[in-house]
Amino acid sequence: MTKTVAVMATLDTKGEEVKYVKKQFGKRGVKTLVMDTGLRGTPQGVKADVTREQLAAASGSTVEKLAAMGRGEAIEVMVKGIAKIVKELYGQGRFQGIMAIGGLDGALLTTGAMRTLPLGVPKLLLTPVAQGKQQFGPFVGTTDMVVMHSVIDILGVNEISRKIFDNAVGAMAGMLRMDVSTKIEGRNVIAMTMYGNTTPTAMLAKKLFEERGYEVVVFHPNGTGGMSMEEMIDQGLFNGVFDLTTHEITDWLYNGVHAGGPTRLDAGVRSGVPQVVVPGCVDFILMGPIEKLEPEFRKRKTYKFNPAVSLVSATREEMEHIASVMAEKLNRAKGPVLVLIPLRGFSMYCHPGEPLYDPERDAAFIKALKGKLSPRIRVKEVDAHINDPLFAETSVAELAKLMGN
Amino acid sequence: MTKTVAVMATLDTKGEEVKYVKKQFGKRGVKTLVMDTGLRGTPQGVKADVTREQLAAASGSTVEKLAAMGRGEAIEVMVKGIAKIVKELYGQGRFQGIMAIGGLDGALLTTGAMRTLPLGVPKLLLTPVAQGKQQFGPFVGTTDMVVMHSVIDILGVNEISRKIFDNAVGAMAGMLRMDVSTKIEGRNVIAMTMYGNTTPTAMLAKKLFEERGYEVVVFHPNGTGGMSMEEMIDQGLFNGVFDLTTHEITDWLYNGVHAGGPTRLDAGVRSGVPQVVVPGCVDFILMGPIEKLEPEFRKRKTYKFNPAVSLVSATREEMEHIASVMAEKLNRAKGPVLVLIPLRGFSMYCHPGEPLYDPERDAAFIKALKGKLSPRIRVKEVDAHINDPLFAETSVAELAKLMGN
Repeated sequence: MTKTVAVMATLDTKGEEVKYVKKQFGKRGVKTLVMDTGLRGTPQGVKADVTREQLAAASGSTVEKLAAMGRGEAIEVMVKGIAKIVKELYGQGRFQGIMAIGGLDGALLTTGAMRTLPLGVPKLLLTPVAQGKQQFGPFVGTTDMVVMHSVIDILGVNEISRKIFDNAVGAMAGMLRMDVSTKIEGRNVIAMTMYGNTTPTAMLAKKLFEERGYEVVVFHPNGTGGMSMEEMIDQGLFNGVFDLTTHEITDWLYNGVHAGGPTRLDAGVRSGVPQVVVPGCVDFILMGPIEKLEPEFRKRKTYKFNPAVSLVSATREEMEHIASVMAEKLNRAKGPVLVLIPLRGFSMYCHPGEPLYDPERDAAFIKALKGKLSPRIRVKEVDAHINDPLFAETSVAELAKLMGN
Repeated sequence: MTKTVAVMATLDTKGEEVKYVKKQFGKRGVKTLVMDTGLRGTPQGVKADVTREQLAAASGSTVEKLAAMGRGEAIEVMVKGIAKIVKELYGQGRFQGIMAIGGLDGALLTTGAMRTLPLGVPKLLLTPVAQGKQQFGPFVGTTDMVVMHSVIDILGVNEISRKIFDNAVGAMAGMLRMDVSTKIEGRNVIAMTMYGNTTPTAMLAKKLFEERGYEVVVFHPNGTGGMSMEEMIDQGLFNGVFDLTTHEITDWLYNGVHAGGPTRLDAGVRSGVPQVVVPGCVDFILMGPIEKLEPEFRKRKTYKFNPAVSLVSATREEMEHIASVMAEKLNRAKGPVLVLIPLRGFSMYCHPGEPLYDPERDAAFIKALKGKLSPRIRVKEVDAHINDPLFAETSVAELAKLMGN
């Protein structure tokens, strides 16, 4: 089947460039569906398959109104319209991959729509702003976005830009040829959250799950990883969840680097997926360089993880609050949940002889958690540290039981 | 010709994943050259074509010594060895594209070597850390790097990771099929630096150059763009340089966002390429959100460009210093240089009625620049604003003359 790629750009400033890209896709047997995201000058070079007027209308506005708005406001309005049309056309099978060409505004405008498409759909952003201090987050979100740095401004078809465009076309055409399915067929997939900090138990659990015939998909709960997992839980992709590292809750409540927002744990709770939830690494806040910590944090137990990252011990009061937030969320669980507590420490450096060890505080957390959890939520305490083999073995056996094995 | 892709990863933790990727490349008719960047556990899954011992030796060290070093130090040492081997093997035609799979350490370790390869060579980084607050700069540098977010941790071959790996393989195989040449054949290429702020003259100059049979390659001088241009100048890619927007010098001297480092202007100077140099946008420092400016900058003339960017007027003293730095660099020029000065303002918002207008300061800059430039460096003053058509026309005519037309 001939594949089609949706190409988004502002045709007033990038019409000639899109014309070249379209021609190169044609040579590789790939059709294009050109979407004009421009607002101001006259479209150049190629005819849009989806016009700016159609995009504006889908945004509940008009080109004239949008052009008169401030830059930020117009982007905010248009993102919604573009996302709506992109989802519709993808749903109708009108394209199988999507590519955007643009600067900062163009990238923000288009990637919002691209991010609504499922994992596996080829998504490519070609932009000169993928450099320096620009962060990945605003373009990539939680998706499998591919970003290519254009080196030069996207302005003109010349000997250098042709090399850049050709490789971008090649990358997209190559992804389309792989024909990656967006469906998840397997019915033996477990999601697991893992830090370097919880690797010993994660690796052993992965091995034990695999011996039982499961595949394990590992998420790094860095503020994005947990959200990615929860999106996939909502899509029903997993048979079970081993939420070993729920640290993002602490960073969300206390402004750590890996804050993932207020929705952590919610997908597991509302989906009814069987899950084993562990307070892994909830006992520290992940912060920046140790020498830049605020005085109030320097007074606490800390650990210099590397020059850019320090771990700051959570206080007893903070831990009690974290316990109540977790309990309040878990009490709404629609499916089978087991809260599994490692009595000898929730993280690698909270262990006798390690810098973040604080057993009294942990006891207060456990008491608070058990006190707030509804009686129908089962709790099991394991006389082990989170990284002890016994804890991994217990976790695997318990989740297997919840999944009916 | 069968293409080969170099695949870099730590085979102790990612051997099974590399094995899968190798198999998928094989199905697409692409050979692999596996380089093991691991240091600790036993390599798994596939046999390395370039072993960790070879990489360590190229780094002037041994695997044992490197494994005993701190994380940061080992990376610093190994980057050099990997870069050396990558350059050698690429030079011998042993591979035509390069791919790295890894987390933060792996990405830092490998992209340093990937960035030594010329523009046009397919370069792909697959990593879970391309998200959130992670910046592009450390991975991309000034190159045409392609970065793909893996969504999940690269740990295991499962139903989700196979989709990610397949698209990464497809993107690389597709780029290799394009057979993009790294050579620049054209002998009619002009490099130009342009901001949104200097777009009117840049666009008119581009049109006028094209009418004369030139191609114009446009760089965005955001701290990376200027460096990219200078690297290409050093490679001898351009017939002429229209350095319309030398703003990066100001941001380097006064800690602006678009600081590109101390080498700006140097490649043009040492290469002898004909150039027209303009003090475009040297009259402001590009800073962050206007409401977060330090008090000393709030006292100055400022312009809110957007919610994230403000332009802060440079003082007379700063401008005089900028003039002396530019003059000191340009005085070393080996080729024909014309310094072209727009007498009625160096940037869009320095114009009568605009917020950054300061003609007395500009006069002081011009006086300082002319005073410090060696008599053999020609200066021409144009009675126009930088964005007036007269200035664009004069620039084009003068650079054409310098290039012998």
